[in-house]
Amino acid sequence: MSDAPPTPVHAEHLREFVARAFVAVGMPAGDAGIVAQLMTEAELQGSDGHGVIRLAPYIRRIKAGGINLRPEIRVIEERPATALIDGDNAMGHLVMSRAAQLASAKARQCGIAWVGARLSNHAGPASLYARMALPHDMIGLYFAVGNANHLPPWGGLEMLLSTNPIAVAIPAFEEVPVVLDMATTVAAYGKVKAKVQRGEMMPEGWMIDRQGEPLLDPKRADEGFLLPIGGHKGYGLALVFGLLAGTLNGAAMGREVIDFNKDFKSATNTGQAIAMIDLAAFGDAAAFKQRVDTVVRDLRASERMPQVDRIWLPGEQSQARRIAYGRDGIPIGAALRKVLDGVAADLGIAALA
Amino acid sequence: MSDAPPTPVHAEHLREFVARAFVAVGMPAGDAGIVAQLMTEAELQGSDGHGVIRLAPYIRRIKAGGINLRPEIRVIEERPATALIDGDNAMGHLVMSRAAQLASAKARQCGIAWVGARLSNHAGPASLYARMALPHDMIGLYFAVGNANHLPPWGGLEMLLSTNPIAVAIPAFEEVPVVLDMATTVAAYGKVKAKVQRGEMMPEGWMIDRQGEPLLDPKRADEGFLLPIGGHKGYGLALVFGLLAGTLNGAAMGREVIDFNKDFKSATNTGQAIAMIDLAAFGDAAAFKQRVDTVVRDLRASERMPQVDRIWLPGEQSQARRIAYGRDGIPIGAALRKVLDGVAADLGIAALA
Repeated sequence: MSDAPPTPVHAEHLREFVARAFVAVGMPAGDAGIVAQLMTEAELQGSDGHGVIRLAPYIRRIKAGGINLRPEIRVIEERPATALIDGDNAMGHLVMSRAAQLASAKARQCGIAWVGARLSNHAGPASLYARMALPHDMIGLYFAVGNANHLPPWGGLEMLLSTNPIAVAIPAFEEVPVVLDMATTVAAYGKVKAKVQRGEMMPEGWMIDRQGEPLLDPKRADEGFLLPIGGHKGYGLALVFGLLAGTLNGAAMGREVIDFNKDFKSATNTGQAIAMIDLAAFGDAAAFKQRVDTVVRDLRASERMPQVDRIWLPGEQSQARRIAYGRDGIPIGAALRKVLDGVAADLGIAALA
Repeated sequence: MSDAPPTPVHAEHLREFVARAFVAVGMPAGDAGIVAQLMTEAELQGSDGHGVIRLAPYIRRIKAGGINLRPEIRVIEERPATALIDGDNAMGHLVMSRAAQLASAKARQCGIAWVGARLSNHAGPASLYARMALPHDMIGLYFAVGNANHLPPWGGLEMLLSTNPIAVAIPAFEEVPVVLDMATTVAAYGKVKAKVQRGEMMPEGWMIDRQGEPLLDPKRADEGFLLPIGGHKGYGLALVFGLLAGTLNGAAMGREVIDFNKDFKSATNTGQAIAMIDLAAFGDAAAFKQRVDTVVRDLRASERMPQVDRIWLPGEQSQARRIAYGRDGIPIGAALRKVLDGVAADLGIAALA
């Protein structure tokens, strides 16, 4: 599948289109607005593997009855600094927005809070939720179990683990916040899907086939598996983040994980967790943020390798995109636009402007 | 430096020797006992880069006045679920044992707790402290700023970051707990030192020199730097773990980090953090641990690559060593024993039995 150059779409138009689509399949308007907002934010920061590329599969899942559009999201276990949320098979964006809200309130009281969720669903890029700590002058940490297993244990062939990501958002004073958002594999599976969408090959090191040979064609992704970062270390990280985000919450982990690319009907029982740390619990928040600025500036100004133009901090490139895409529009490739036009036609709604 | 085959030493003899050495340089016997116990535990689990290999440099630092032997370790910030500890430049083992104790008490009340430390020092392997959560039926997480910068930012040449490790310990029911303990670099610097001690070369991928070429001779470690896991991802992890363990606590990070291999006099202002999560805050603890067993067994029994004998879980190999070394003795190489004999002669104490 080749792809014409992407055309820019105004964020507001994208948000309205996504909300329209969800309302057309029966989602309450308020919920549709929240999900559309977060999916658009994902696009604005360049998380294209977790943005509107997911709209068609979300719609398909909703139509198949695989998402509860009238959920009762509720707290089922609670301590002063922790909570366990039952997502009642709602859209993950709704469950984790609620979790983030609760985490910030509890962290304000206790200094830190940790809120886990079961019976949630895919919620988009991890950084969206870790970043929700920033306006509260808090550090955010987010963990999730991925929605399909693409990773065997180290030395194994059976894909029993997902790319279980971590995101950490740390406020700065004048600098852009430090926001790390990474899968524990060299490439996230969403990036593999984006390569298919754009008709591109994958670089060596992303995936191997069952013989251990490099797998470069993203359309053949089913025939191999993703490689963890640092070999056995990435396997270890994927496992412990999965136990924290999944098993601790009574959510799916390991063999229980449903491949949401193949099964659109069963509840995924997705597990996620968010933690927030109140800066003020460790001293003066402004002084902390100034110390972060110093670290950021020292790193940025340090000596570079000859071929390197700039040293980037985690979160700087997505912030640059947020500004550029907000001003110039979000680049949507022709293949993706065709899919979105198909969704519009299918649902009988106005196409993306 | 070549090395004769290691000879086994009884753990109890090692512990007594280490305690003797610390008492001889003026450490109170109770404190010496705690540090010796933890250093021996490090050896028992095979963390040879963080065990008795550190005794001589610790002694040297104490003699140079770089460690406070009569510290007042105290809580300087506190919320229901958090605390910030001022370590008063004590041995890190003492500071983080205290932090772990406080974390477990707070987590029992609040569901989770996070205790950070400033003005601490090197405390041995991260997993020692994460594991302290296990007897409480809690999950332990530990973060630390390393005591020397060996890592430039991604694309850089200036070593402004350390190997900042993470450890996570997760209780199981009948299985061995899952204990991940990893530097954010492909190899921890302690492993490089152990290679020098054993007179071995490093494998490719551990370090590169300033020209980006593989560096294999551990004695030339000063001429290059460690490689982060997953390239920019490991750089991001080292940075955020450093901000969490160092900057948040007002401890050294980035350019402030003192190379404790070169400067034995200045306070290192080491930062560490420990978090504990009470399983009972998320439902029935036994049910959680049984779910962990299921994941562990599914992974272990899954299909292996042809040349692979066994799929290991993080923490299984160190547990196997703990059993073997406890029974047969801890293997101490001839070079290391020579160093320890030198310490004994120097301090006028009985040598290692």
